[in-house]
Amino acid sequence: MGRFEGVGATRGPTRRYFLETLARMGGSAMLLAGMDALGFGIGSAMAAPPKLSGTPKRNKVIVLGAGNAGLASAYELTQAGYDVTVIEARGFPGGRAQTARKGFSLTELGGTTQTCDFDDGLYINHGPWRIPYHHHSTLHYTRKFGVPLELFNNDNDASFLYFGKGKGPLAGKVVRKGEVAADMLGHSSEILAKLARQGTLDGRLDAEDKERFIDFLVEFGGLSRKELSYSGTPGRGFLVEPGAGVNPGPGKPSTPYALDALLDSGLAQMLRGVSEWDQQRTMFQPLDGMEQIPKAIARALPGGTIRTSTEVRHIRQGPNSVTVDVVRDGQPETITGDWCICTIPLSVLKGIDNGLSPAFQAAMAKCAYAPVGKIGLQMKRRFWEEDHGIYGGHVFCDDPDINNIALPSTGWQGRKGVLLGYYNFGPNAAKISARSPADRAVLAVDYGQKIFPAYRESYESSFSVAWHRVKYNLGGWGMWSDEARATAYPVLCEPDGRIYLAGEHMSYIGGWQAGAFESAWQQVARLHARAMKG
Amino acid sequence: MGRFEGVGATRGPTRRYFLETLARMGGSAMLLAGMDALGFGIGSAMAAPPKLSGTPKRNKVIVLGAGNAGLASAYELTQAGYDVTVIEARGFPGGRAQTARKGFSLTELGGTTQTCDFDDGLYINHGPWRIPYHHHSTLHYTRKFGVPLELFNNDNDASFLYFGKGKGPLAGKVVRKGEVAADMLGHSSEILAKLARQGTLDGRLDAEDKERFIDFLVEFGGLSRKELSYSGTPGRGFLVEPGAGVNPGPGKPSTPYALDALLDSGLAQMLRGVSEWDQQRTMFQPLDGMEQIPKAIARALPGGTIRTSTEVRHIRQGPNSVTVDVVRDGQPETITGDWCICTIPLSVLKGIDNGLSPAFQAAMAKCAYAPVGKIGLQMKRRFWEEDHGIYGGHVFCDDPDINNIALPSTGWQGRKGVLLGYYNFGPNAAKISARSPADRAVLAVDYGQKIFPAYRESYESSFSVAWHRVKYNLGGWGMWSDEARATAYPVLCEPDGRIYLAGEHMSYIGGWQAGAFESAWQQVARLHARAMKG
Ligand SMILES: Cc1cc2nc3c(=O)[nH]c(=O)nc-3n(C[C@H](O)[C@H](O)[C@H](O)COP(=O)(O)OP(=O)(O)OC[C@H]3O[C@@H](n4cnc5c(N)ncnc54)[C@H](O)[C@@H]3O)c2cc1C
Ligand SMILES: Cc1cc2nc3c(=O)[nH]c(=O)nc-3n(C[C@H](O)[C@H](O)[C@H](O)COP(=O)(O)OP(=O)(O)OC[C@H]3O[C@@H](n4cnc5c(N)ncnc54)[C@H](O)[C@@H]3O)c2cc1C
Repeated sequence: MGRFEGVGATRGPTRRYFLETLARMGGSAMLLAGMDALGFGIGSAMAAPPKLSGTPKRNKVIVLGAGNAGLASAYELTQAGYDVTVIEARGFPGGRAQTARKGFSLTELGGTTQTCDFDDGLYINHGPWRIPYHHHSTLHYTRKFGVPLELFNNDNDASFLYFGKGKGPLAGKVVRKGEVAADMLGHSSEILAKLARQGTLDGRLDAEDKERFIDFLVEFGGLSRKELSYSGTPGRGFLVEPGAGVNPGPGKPSTPYALDALLDSGLAQMLRGVSEWDQQRTMFQPLDGMEQIPKAIARALPGGTIRTSTEVRHIRQGPNSVTVDVVRDGQPETITGDWCICTIPLSVLKGIDNGLSPAFQAAMAKCAYAPVGKIGLQMKRRFWEEDHGIYGGHVFCDDPDINNIALPSTGWQGRKGVLLGYYNFGPNAAKISARSPADRAVLAVDYGQKIFPAYRESYESSFSVAWHRVKYNLGGWGMWSDEARATAYPVLCEPDGRIYLAGEHMSYIGGWQAGAFESAWQQVARLHARAMKG
Repeated sequence: MGRFEGVGATRGPTRRYFLETLARMGGSAMLLAGMDALGFGIGSAMAAPPKLSGTPKRNKVIVLGAGNAGLASAYELTQAGYDVTVIEARGFPGGRAQTARKGFSLTELGGTTQTCDFDDGLYINHGPWRIPYHHHSTLHYTRKFGVPLELFNNDNDASFLYFGKGKGPLAGKVVRKGEVAADMLGHSSEILAKLARQGTLDGRLDAEDKERFIDFLVEFGGLSRKELSYSGTPGRGFLVEPGAGVNPGPGKPSTPYALDALLDSGLAQMLRGVSEWDQQRTMFQPLDGMEQIPKAIARALPGGTIRTSTEVRHIRQGPNSVTVDVVRDGQPETITGDWCICTIPLSVLKGIDNGLSPAFQAAMAKCAYAPVGKIGLQMKRRFWEEDHGIYGGHVFCDDPDINNIALPSTGWQGRKGVLLGYYNFGPNAAKISARSPADRAVLAVDYGQKIFPAYRESYESSFSVAWHRVKYNLGGWGMWSDEARATAYPVLCEPDGRIYLAGEHMSYIGGWQAGAFESAWQQVARLHARAMKG
């Protein structure tokens, strides 16, 4: 399984770190669980929802959970003539696809409540925040419902890297990703081109291809054509940028970093040849927050389809029906349907009196949920743009409490902005989440100050989330080990009686909205095929 | 001089081709002229306009030309208390920073008039279209005047490449840039990692760094850690994309292209390690067209400052004044001022009775102007997005009549779109521009059809420009040979009496708006310093 475009990949350094930590924590099955969870080589296959034609014999469906999986299930089923009720514990639809803006309130387990106090118009997507271009299902809904998109700048060569834990002259130095990339690829190309010139590759390439390969390396690495040597390139930036007249005129070139300094610092090891599949450069975000997607789907449902603030407490099946006991504003209620699509995260479902078969209970237990934390920091000035020319992208760090600082890809050149102050996983997420929200902000601001001189003085307010402490999620996303994928996961892909499971956890696009949508599409199609039979 | 990120650089293949062609046409001085003109290693130095404090003794300035250089000159000078008149031959300010939309009309030398017939809301930036993040001066004005920006997707791994002229199995095949990048870097990393493992680099790297270098190559190229071999990566795309349930479940991997096939096709040679300086990945465009920038500056000038539809015919200097004879609606008029900033392109200025010194005349003659052509094609369906998942970016081709097809970075998921059907230079631009606009469209559509099955059936209307045939420009941008940079260019950087030249041609950021802005800033500062003295 590949891992590419590390520096461009938000989860690049994170990922490796996370995997190693999981391995330490839980052995190799956990390691593999982490690999799936973090999205190695997974993406999206279906481009359009299934066509559900004909009139089902039994058409009353209860959908549990109004996250993206539940909403898409409800939408596709109502379009096909089903009578759908969606039960949602939260006061709003969308599930994890939340956007924190002024007044948004979140209570973590343990009781801390935060109410977002960002200025009007500012927000943080503290759950999902970006959409790869190949997530056809997510993009199907933005297109269908006219949710306007803007590009999410996921790979910015101008952005900084800050590795404090390596060795050598670059340790603890703020450098730009493009400098590291230019120099590593320049040095590597030089070595390879010179070896090719010396004949080292003669067994592998014929004479013509050898010359073409050298041509490639000269262009790719920025080598001098004659000596095949690397001594910097305009693409890594200038000491004095070129300009008008004779001064600055052509400007002054910058000097490359040495190969050993790049290797010793650990920075080199973050580079990837092409972006990973789930971190491909062309990514989108909805204008004005990720919540616009579930909101748009919810608006397209018949009025009254979704019952919010209604918590599922008990699920039972009869031979011809599914019954769900819920509590709404302290009042118990019972709902009965012919079928049920359950999109409640397994982490939560495990703890509910769910009436599922022992095989299902055993299989569910094999899915672990990722501790994940994010913090949004409102800054009174967009110093990353104004002082450093960094427009979006990520600042990768080798401190796993932080992992990456992400600069917003929206509101370019505006006055204020909300940046992501950390994106942490696993034990680090668990550790940081034990702090109060105010203390989390202190940690984030202290770290950012090492990188940006204007960080602390610009900080105004924060909003943080620890998804493993969020009541109706208990984790960022589901993680399957290879063993669990082979044994438990296929069990859950089948219906248990009249109950079908859907959600990001029921896909190989775990941790992405596309996983939620496509599992919904798949289960809806199977339910329909069966309902047509009677 | 570097040349990086070829496939990501619109002018990548173009550039090399152009340079070679120029070399054939005009010898090595021309070659170097081409190198400057195409922006090798040039960028922007000044972040803010000069502070012009104090009250000038003589404050009447005539600015010739209301392109970005003229507008910025006029704005900064009026802010400092100067009395400014801008003379502009065209009926609108902006110069080359034009946007063609419904009703926009353009007459080329020779008499062909095109009136743009795109649907409302659709447009093509047939002049400048993108702004690198480090063009501080251009971004200074978008920020100052609140011109909203959106990202311009200049480097899209999902976009196609089409090389018809190479050899081998990939010649004439439509491939994705990410496939080529993944495979070239995978193969190269494999070769280098295996050589390192065998000890070939032992003189160059110590034992620890050797292991780190191998680590780097494993991550960068996507190699198996044990065998150090490359057999494809998720980042290059899948045969069957991963999805929900067990089918497609994990999806099916794709197979890499062979190293020799990549080299033989010529595709490999387009890759660059990092983006070239002027093609850095983070680029912007103003919402609703590049013309929004000059429009915003023009709006900020006192009413009546700009005299449009007024052509400069004759420029003369006395010891204390500059006099300009103009023609407005057939009526001659004479305007006198203390100073003159002349931003008329040298290609045009040469042909005007300009009263400049013999040294200036000789120096001006040394600046060549680039033939450049662009065509916008309105498509009734965004098939590149809908059928191929390509959202913006460029399709590079090795036919220099076309060079690149660019997919719009605006109006994502809308119904229709305008794409750039070709971007040609030099002799190819000259050749294609001899055709009628209708014939240019036929050529562009025929070529595009080789790449996209839905191209021809989606085509609705076109708008093309050949800048060398545009009356008040006579070329895309100025080009200086190394010799001319050393001898002629510095002459023109000094004032000739009371006349100061400004414009993109008076910078090392030629062919970019930043060159126009920064030369204006520089000349305005010098004029002011002198005007303060008397
Ligand atoms: C930090 C983070 C970053 C992410 N980044 C991205 C990204 O960039 N791009 C992307 O596409 N995806 C991303 N994701 C993943 C994405 O958010 C999820 O895959 C997707 O939103 C899951 O949808 P779902 O419907 O499966 O689950 P959910 O959205 O969790 O929906 C489940 C619903 O069930 C409800 N529920 C739970 N218990 C009960 C109960 N007892 N009774 C009634 N209702 C109940 C919940 O309230 C919730 O509404 C990210 C997730 C996280 C946490
Ligand atoms: C095809 C193309 C692509 C480009 N791409 C980019 C890009 O992506 N990004 C970018 O930043 N830049 C780009 N540029 C360059 C950019 O357009 C120019 O550098 C900039 O607009 C030049 O501004 P200027 O004021 O120097 O000249 P101009 O804009 O040409 O202004 C000169 C003015 O003088 C006027 N004039 C001429 N003769 C007379 C006369 N006799 N009397 C009165 N007025 C006269 C003209 O009408 C014009 O308004 C591109 C240019 C072209 C042609």
